[in-house]
Amino acid sequence: MDRVEIAKLFADKEFYAEKTITVCGWIRTIRDSKALGFVDLNDGSCFKGLQVVLEEQNLTNFKDIVKLNVGAAVSVTGTIILTPEMKQPFEMHAQQVEVEGASTPDYPLQKKRHSVEFLRSIAHLRPRTNLFSAAFRVRSAAAFAIHQFFHENGFVYVHTPIVTGSDCEGAGEMFTITTLDMDNVPKTEDGKADFAGDFFGKHTSLTVSGQLEAECMAMAFGKVYTFGPTFRAENSNTPRHAAEFWMIEPEIAFADLAGDMDLAEKMVKFVIRSVLEACPQDIEFCNQFVDKGLLERLEQVASADFGRVTYTEAIELLKKNNGNFEYPVEWGCDLQTEHERYLTEQVFHRPVFVTDYPKEIKAFYMRLNDDGKTVAAMDMLVPGIGELIGGSQREERLEALRQRLQELGLSEEDYWWYLDLRRYGGTKHAGFGLGFERLVMYLTGISNIRDVLPFPRTTGVAEF
Amino acid sequence: MDRVEIAKLFADKEFYAEKTITVCGWIRTIRDSKALGFVDLNDGSCFKGLQVVLEEQNLTNFKDIVKLNVGAAVSVTGTIILTPEMKQPFEMHAQQVEVEGASTPDYPLQKKRHSVEFLRSIAHLRPRTNLFSAAFRVRSAAAFAIHQFFHENGFVYVHTPIVTGSDCEGAGEMFTITTLDMDNVPKTEDGKADFAGDFFGKHTSLTVSGQLEAECMAMAFGKVYTFGPTFRAENSNTPRHAAEFWMIEPEIAFADLAGDMDLAEKMVKFVIRSVLEACPQDIEFCNQFVDKGLLERLEQVASADFGRVTYTEAIELLKKNNGNFEYPVEWGCDLQTEHERYLTEQVFHRPVFVTDYPKEIKAFYMRLNDDGKTVAAMDMLVPGIGELIGGSQREERLEALRQRLQELGLSEEDYWWYLDLRRYGGTKHAGFGLGFERLVMYLTGISNIRDVLPFPRTTGVAEF
Repeated sequence: MDRVEIAKLFADKEFYAEKTITVCGWIRTIRDSKALGFVDLNDGSCFKGLQVVLEEQNLTNFKDIVKLNVGAAVSVTGTIILTPEMKQPFEMHAQQVEVEGASTPDYPLQKKRHSVEFLRSIAHLRPRTNLFSAAFRVRSAAAFAIHQFFHENGFVYVHTPIVTGSDCEGAGEMFTITTLDMDNVPKTEDGKADFAGDFFGKHTSLTVSGQLEAECMAMAFGKVYTFGPTFRAENSNTPRHAAEFWMIEPEIAFADLAGDMDLAEKMVKFVIRSVLEACPQDIEFCNQFVDKGLLERLEQVASADFGRVTYTEAIELLKKNNGNFEYPVEWGCDLQTEHERYLTEQVFHRPVFVTDYPKEIKAFYMRLNDDGKTVAAMDMLVPGIGELIGGSQREERLEALRQRLQELGLSEEDYWWYLDLRRYGGTKHAGFGLGFERLVMYLTGISNIRDVLPFPRTTGVAEF
Repeated sequence: MDRVEIAKLFADKEFYAEKTITVCGWIRTIRDSKALGFVDLNDGSCFKGLQVVLEEQNLTNFKDIVKLNVGAAVSVTGTIILTPEMKQPFEMHAQQVEVEGASTPDYPLQKKRHSVEFLRSIAHLRPRTNLFSAAFRVRSAAAFAIHQFFHENGFVYVHTPIVTGSDCEGAGEMFTITTLDMDNVPKTEDGKADFAGDFFGKHTSLTVSGQLEAECMAMAFGKVYTFGPTFRAENSNTPRHAAEFWMIEPEIAFADLAGDMDLAEKMVKFVIRSVLEACPQDIEFCNQFVDKGLLERLEQVASADFGRVTYTEAIELLKKNNGNFEYPVEWGCDLQTEHERYLTEQVFHRPVFVTDYPKEIKAFYMRLNDDGKTVAAMDMLVPGIGELIGGSQREERLEALRQRLQELGLSEEDYWWYLDLRRYGGTKHAGFGLGFERLVMYLTGISNIRDVLPFPRTTGVAEF
């Protein structure tokens, strides 16, 4: 069967005009009046569906077809007719309709508004709705744009491991992975779990970040990135936290913090422009029904010159507004979303990088600045959301890194290979992390992370 | 600093001829004789390095530079000189050399042959060798080619979950994920582990396949694919098995087994051609030092018309050679690598799909053929390796699927959402799985899966 996808019709309607073709898809709506019926047929190739006109005089099985339930899958052969005077630019006049798979009157996705909470309970069906169709198509387009961006810029894509034997990545609570019999965990003499007989012969966890391994690869390939799942076993039941999410982590050698910011800005702009171009119908839907300011905000960010301000300067700017914050700031504190949004939305009116944070509130691997108090870190703040990206120049000086490990009570033995990178041809290098779901939320205006993940995993939830 | 990558020099040497530029990289070899020195500088942007010529008369720090150890990182400013009469097409005459990061005489990667076993023990450094530089660059190029192939063909990229609450994917032994205190696992009244207090409120595992979730998405988007990590807790200490590996799983609606095979053939050819084009230096190295027949085999596969034969026919062909097999075949048996390779290498002399296997040796979700004995499965066999891809048309008929679950003692309750896909607009559909590491091994000729994974996880091994 030579099936034409509906996306192709939208891409080149002139070509298909008056042509007889076959389309396959699912019935979103169906209505009939006497000898005429109308089907909104969606095949998932693009956001919009195809209006199929059923005429009793042309269809031997007209009576059966108009009785089909919403959700049924059909294959329709018919002629494409341009309809410039109508809401939709073209329609199909059916000559033959075959039922691929019926549906039932109790099909859960009837034509009415469903709550996102209800739709989460039927995650296997919700991609057939407008909202989730748009969300997951944007997700896919954004993922491809990221791969394309790094590919075109000469980066090597690296799969860092998901299973990790080190409990010292330091980015959050971790899940244990085991093949031990949970009903009867073997014990050491002092009564602790004995992992010697576990699959990997020791305690292992799910990774929280691929950065340290990505640094190894950057010291060979110069420019690398990871794009894979990461995990947090944190009991954060908020709209912004999931236990399983995807992260992009580029790492560049021979680069400092300024180069890192240049890369992050260029990447974000590229991804926004790519998605606007690839998914105009989806973004338009989100702009209309999810977040009215979405399209304008995305276009502004894609063309803005991002600001740059040090943490110390930012604190001075924020202090002027301390009376209006839930949490007033002072030098040394971590920035909350309210502060981040104030900076980017009220002070800079565009995305802004905040740089050079106090070392106490940042990770051990960030490069110590000459002031001895701050590290070469950066957060990218964007209007509407606050922090989108966090990154830093890495500490490439062996002695400085060892001292930092010592200060934090971390063991050099655990980091022998990470320290090796500083022993053998260590270079200035930098990188950042971008939570992919955060990006998809930003691109769609969707405010709950559960609605941009196909099958979200959160506290107490691992269905499907 | 405006750094030029060495890949750019190879891509357009005429442009850079006589130009003075800066390159940054790591010293692979260094030698000097009196007032002259030679450095092979590699920056990872491509397989080959740049020959840098050091002349005492031009360099104030000549004496220090020629004493540098292998592995040191340097930044070199100099002039590109074309050398058409030499082995390398151009070289750089250095005017200024700065040390980014020194190395030491005990740098583990000295200029000599190291065993792959030794190199696995320094996985953080081995990407700096020729073999692993090629392997991981090919890996990256192949991954991008896969994304590009599906993107250009209108597929939606889907992230299926890594954490799964169902223990019934049926593809192998699974790892348990938990946040319970392993030293003191809470117990139910009957003495079993009590997962009620675990992070997800029940027992969860690492996924072995995203297929079932991908089917949900295919029933909305028509054509989807996954590309993510999957896990097997199998104690298979072989060169072909890893506990963590990446898998590509496309799923297409309105398609049968023939369409599935068309897709698989088209994809494999696209990826091979893309990698040959993107990584000629890497493939050439592998062809010369890893597997002499590699390039010829890849080019043959990329242009071959793949054969198709039923399992039943294949068994008849194999029986004629039963005397020479370690495991003689008969109808009903599973095919071993020796049989697969015999079929593709000796009988067909090209890749071949074997279809319609006995239902007893295949998974529950494969579509039952009209003979009642075989299912619409396919394996793609390729010369040099045997099975590269396994796929099937899925059972879309609700009653047939329920009966199959019952025959195998599987519970309908566990599959409620998977059955729903057959209740509401189920369509003919098909898909396949491609182990990504298997593909990279095929593209490079590398025979051990541990050498195509940046940081391999196998029985007893989860280092770095």
